[in-house]
Amino acid sequence: MDVISIGLLGLGTVGSGVVKIIENHQDKLMHQIGCPVKVKKVLVKDIHKERNVQIDKELLTVNPDDILEDSEIDVVIEVMGGIDETKGYLLKALKNKKNVVTANKDLMALHGNQLLTEATSNGCDLFYEASVAGGIPILRGLVEGLASDRITKMMGIVNGTTNFILTKMNKFGSPYEEVLKEAQQLGFAEADPSADVEGLDAARKMAILSTLGFSMPIDLSDVKVEGITGITEEDISYSKKLGYTMKLIGIASRNGEKVEVSVQPALLTETHPLASVNDEYNAVYVYGEAVGETMFYGPGAGSLPTATAVVSDVVGVMKNMRLGVTGNSAISPQYKKSLKTPSEIHAKYFVRLHVKDEVGVFANITSIFSEHGVSFEKILQMPIKEHELAEIVVITHNATLKGFEDILNKLKEYEMVREVKSTYRVEGE
Amino acid sequence: MDVISIGLLGLGTVGSGVVKIIENHQDKLMHQIGCPVKVKKVLVKDIHKERNVQIDKELLTVNPDDILEDSEIDVVIEVMGGIDETKGYLLKALKNKKNVVTANKDLMALHGNQLLTEATSNGCDLFYEASVAGGIPILRGLVEGLASDRITKMMGIVNGTTNFILTKMNKFGSPYEEVLKEAQQLGFAEADPSADVEGLDAARKMAILSTLGFSMPIDLSDVKVEGITGITEEDISYSKKLGYTMKLIGIASRNGEKVEVSVQPALLTETHPLASVNDEYNAVYVYGEAVGETMFYGPGAGSLPTATAVVSDVVGVMKNMRLGVTGNSAISPQYKKSLKTPSEIHAKYFVRLHVKDEVGVFANITSIFSEHGVSFEKILQMPIKEHELAEIVVITHNATLKGFEDILNKLKEYEMVREVKSTYRVEGE
Repeated sequence: MDVISIGLLGLGTVGSGVVKIIENHQDKLMHQIGCPVKVKKVLVKDIHKERNVQIDKELLTVNPDDILEDSEIDVVIEVMGGIDETKGYLLKALKNKKNVVTANKDLMALHGNQLLTEATSNGCDLFYEASVAGGIPILRGLVEGLASDRITKMMGIVNGTTNFILTKMNKFGSPYEEVLKEAQQLGFAEADPSADVEGLDAARKMAILSTLGFSMPIDLSDVKVEGITGITEEDISYSKKLGYTMKLIGIASRNGEKVEVSVQPALLTETHPLASVNDEYNAVYVYGEAVGETMFYGPGAGSLPTATAVVSDVVGVMKNMRLGVTGNSAISPQYKKSLKTPSEIHAKYFVRLHVKDEVGVFANITSIFSEHGVSFEKILQMPIKEHELAEIVVITHNATLKGFEDILNKLKEYEMVREVKSTYRVEGE
Repeated sequence: MDVISIGLLGLGTVGSGVVKIIENHQDKLMHQIGCPVKVKKVLVKDIHKERNVQIDKELLTVNPDDILEDSEIDVVIEVMGGIDETKGYLLKALKNKKNVVTANKDLMALHGNQLLTEATSNGCDLFYEASVAGGIPILRGLVEGLASDRITKMMGIVNGTTNFILTKMNKFGSPYEEVLKEAQQLGFAEADPSADVEGLDAARKMAILSTLGFSMPIDLSDVKVEGITGITEEDISYSKKLGYTMKLIGIASRNGEKVEVSVQPALLTETHPLASVNDEYNAVYVYGEAVGETMFYGPGAGSLPTATAVVSDVVGVMKNMRLGVTGNSAISPQYKKSLKTPSEIHAKYFVRLHVKDEVGVFANITSIFSEHGVSFEKILQMPIKEHELAEIVVITHNATLKGFEDILNKLKEYEMVREVKSTYRVEGE
């Protein structure tokens, strides 16, 4: 090969980063690949738009076929985002025997299996390291680094926006709405933050992670999702008092053949490695039967970090091209999907209640829990004098999700309970 | 291939782990490789010794040639340790076209380049992930995950024994000797702990890491080493007061074409991700121009964690065998070795002095620093009444190593300085 030609779909934040890295690190790339790497064509929406990267206008096109049908282009990098149209482009690229590198988590979470099958049947590589946790090489870590181990649990802080918001709420006790505004001003949250704050973005990444880590085809719809919009200052304050840090955690756990994947705000023991992952940083904690605890930490987003993952994938593709072994990296999931039922999901819970401050109420509440086999690990009770109420906060020992939901229903029916203020999962012990 | 046959050199802690993982995770291995994996022969010193792993006595041998000369053995796993004799075995294995996986940091730090060259010229793979930071897939992270980036700094807590000792010293303020004894009782330190506590073990790992991360052939003798045996309770206590945590840190940094690699106890800012890596855990912090900050965390030693890395390497070898591309993974260093001189190494320093408690002394000390262009970031002065002395602790702004050494010499000459009690590098801001 004289030169490796790249077609770039998209020239936004990540796309500009890709162009910069290919230019600035050309000598390292050349040393590893053995020939120069060139961006040959870039698909954009508007050729005349001002860009924050120097690029020859001649390279820009608004016609995807200038890339997808160009037989000289070896690798297509997709950093334009979107789902249906983008999927069409990538299928076409693969059919035309082009290797594909994508940073598109939405697309991979929804149509990853179809795209991977298409890649394999065309003898092409499809790499997507950048789709999860930006610059952190976590997919490689799972697939190669822990190739011999049986992974039983993954916990991820995989959304930078919500981690930024929760870090500030934890640190300064500020209310959610105020911190969200600050995050928007600083560019850590979108104008419409819903995909982030509702947990959907994290759920996409957990679907991709658990598919790889458990070798089981987990779809986005299998992931139970809860966002951070309901977290109050009181919740944060109590979690601190009890020795926890509030984080939006993606949890994927396996017992035997059965798995559970969820995203929710959870109380994490302060000494857990994930608890000190702050601001916009991401981290994925992996528990393997043999290796024990490992954690991969780094920037979860951003132009250059994400572009690093994209270009490192391109290097992987190119090495495979040189060796003549593209299309061999995808390993289809080993196991059929088997999800835990609510009776098979075990966790500890934080529960905060407002109850009437009368004799015998706490004893009755205790029995509602104990009738379901659930006891308390920590208890905090404080009077709310002006309303003749008491605030009760408990951390339970392990309960099944089914049992816990039954308890909540019973509590809501009990006339002495004014309100179940909040409940969270507790992790990290 | 019907079956992949492994020859195992050594059946100690890690070797037993390898046997267990290959047995327990056979279905995962088979799914990834497409055929069963069998341990065919194991080299041991004593066939009749009691083992903590179930293994057919028939597989054991005391003759290395039963493995090295057996044409049916595809992969040789070396977990016996040692240097000269072991190197001879591995060279023979490679000459006989066997792929090699090793966990031997001493060997790789000293003779890695020779072994890799031999592997490449025989078309064989030589993988050594387990040689650095046990179960953490850091070498893959550097070589593949960050393939497109230019790494400018690595800081590693790469020795579990010293991290265990320093964690206890930090937490309980106990003296070094007492904690060392505890570590020995718990099995976290050897009866002869010198390779660990003198920093040599960490230095070997830093030589391997910096060779890969900087693509430059760094030898063990290029690594400046200082151990933890001189750290006092006072040093720990002052470092805490000033907002730092004392850690044994391997530092590899690059400016332009020049690099510096060292291992020393250093004061790390408390908020730095490495500062919360405690007990026997290891972590490697990597700074890349594009990706920014990443960190890889996990167990640095132990039977199963290290064996995980070994067997994951075996999976890598086997995938390459299946694809017919073994011997292509080693990329020789891109750059000639170029080490920073003491005038090119920049750092902040902690200095603790005992001086005579007289008027003008502090001003004179300040001028000794400022004559070399070094100012103070933090200052602490306390009288030591019974001796008419004062204890002065300063954290400097950036200084060159050369400048700092000149300052120390000047301080030692100054008659008002009773003693330079201790100095440490300060990192992590």
